[in-house]
Amino acid sequence: MGRTSDAREKIVDAARALIELRGYTALGVAEICKAAGVPKGSFYYFFESKEALALAVIDEHWAGQQRAWKEALSGGSEPLTRLRRLFEVTQAAQRAGQRTCGTVSGCLFGNLTLEMSNHTEAVRVRLQEIFEAQVELVDAVIAEARARGDVAVADTREAARSVVAQLEGQVLFAKLYNDPRRLDALWANCLALLGARTPDEVPAGL
Amino acid sequence: MGRTSDAREKIVDAARALIELRGYTALGVAEICKAAGVPKGSFYYFFESKEALALAVIDEHWAGQQRAWKEALSGGSEPLTRLRRLFEVTQAAQRAGQRTCGTVSGCLFGNLTLEMSNHTEAVRVRLQEIFEAQVELVDAVIAEARARGDVAVADTREAARSVVAQLEGQVLFAKLYNDPRRLDALWANCLALLGARTPDEVPAGL
Repeated sequence: MGRTSDAREKIVDAARALIELRGYTALGVAEICKAAGVPKGSFYYFFESKEALALAVIDEHWAGQQRAWKEALSGGSEPLTRLRRLFEVTQAAQRAGQRTCGTVSGCLFGNLTLEMSNHTEAVRVRLQEIFEAQVELVDAVIAEARARGDVAVADTREAARSVVAQLEGQVLFAKLYNDPRRLDALWANCLALLGARTPDEVPAGL
Repeated sequence: MGRTSDAREKIVDAARALIELRGYTALGVAEICKAAGVPKGSFYYFFESKEALALAVIDEHWAGQQRAWKEALSGGSEPLTRLRRLFEVTQAAQRAGQRTCGTVSGCLFGNLTLEMSNHTEAVRVRLQEIFEAQVELVDAVIAEARARGDVAVADTREAARSVVAQLEGQVLFAKLYNDPRRLDALWANCLALLGARTPDEVPAGL
């Protein structure tokens, strides 16, 4: 039993690394099993299909990212300080990915949105749920900041969507240019999007 | 000769439609030729490889989009009015795509960035050039707006990058939710990012 659950984990880990490097479509089950070091028969013991594996990879990646986001966005500091931490965590993750894989891997969810959302409804729905959850986490912090008069937005949910969209757009460029410094602009952009009233308020491009 | 150049065009058109619908990796040369209604032998007469075809699709798509962007961003109106037109043109294109394909196809360049940029250096470089050209077109309008005192950014190039990143991020969500209305927020976001000083200045979420 210990060995079997280990094999599932190995398959998911190998698949995630391969998807980050090369995308989902190009992957074959045999290749995933080889990278995972498990016999091909194991695959269909754990997963009904390659799509089921994709969903498992998405869920596991989100479990880790959700922990990191909640940790960054919680705690005793001021709301905008916590929001800033989210961007720092994102940039650190992209830097770490670049060190490990040699290339900025971008956002797994963004990548799969563009690669898979037109093919499989199950993946599309899951990715929608994850982005909604991200928006909700950011929304809560923006609402706190608004209550303190730190930001000037009417609809905090809509503002959170814009912040997450900005994050996705800049991460896409970080991937294209293989340069995590592309994410340097995120914080100033976020403050501008939120009409922030903080001492370090700066519009985009400063 | 007339027939031959017609076949090349048919291949590029069919490939573009298939890439928008299903991505690049999943495509086979035989399928592209079938959709284009040309014999498979024609393919290698025109294209050295599938990658060469991808570059041709990218170039042709950019030729059309560049015309549309230049048209939107030029003319006698005020710079911010022209910039707004760019977002309207983008939204109209996504709506049209949704009517034709049944699903919002997103940005071909963003899609290929996430799907291909880690695989082929030629495609990565071409996509970088295209995004630079987009940023340059937007930069010119922002610089005009700044000269009039309409926006408050220090570095117009950096600001243009943020605007294009915002566009990419929101288009990604429009694709994920198959809903071009996701792009409604773009104009307010853009004004906020630029620290715009226009009568219709609104921060994100208004």
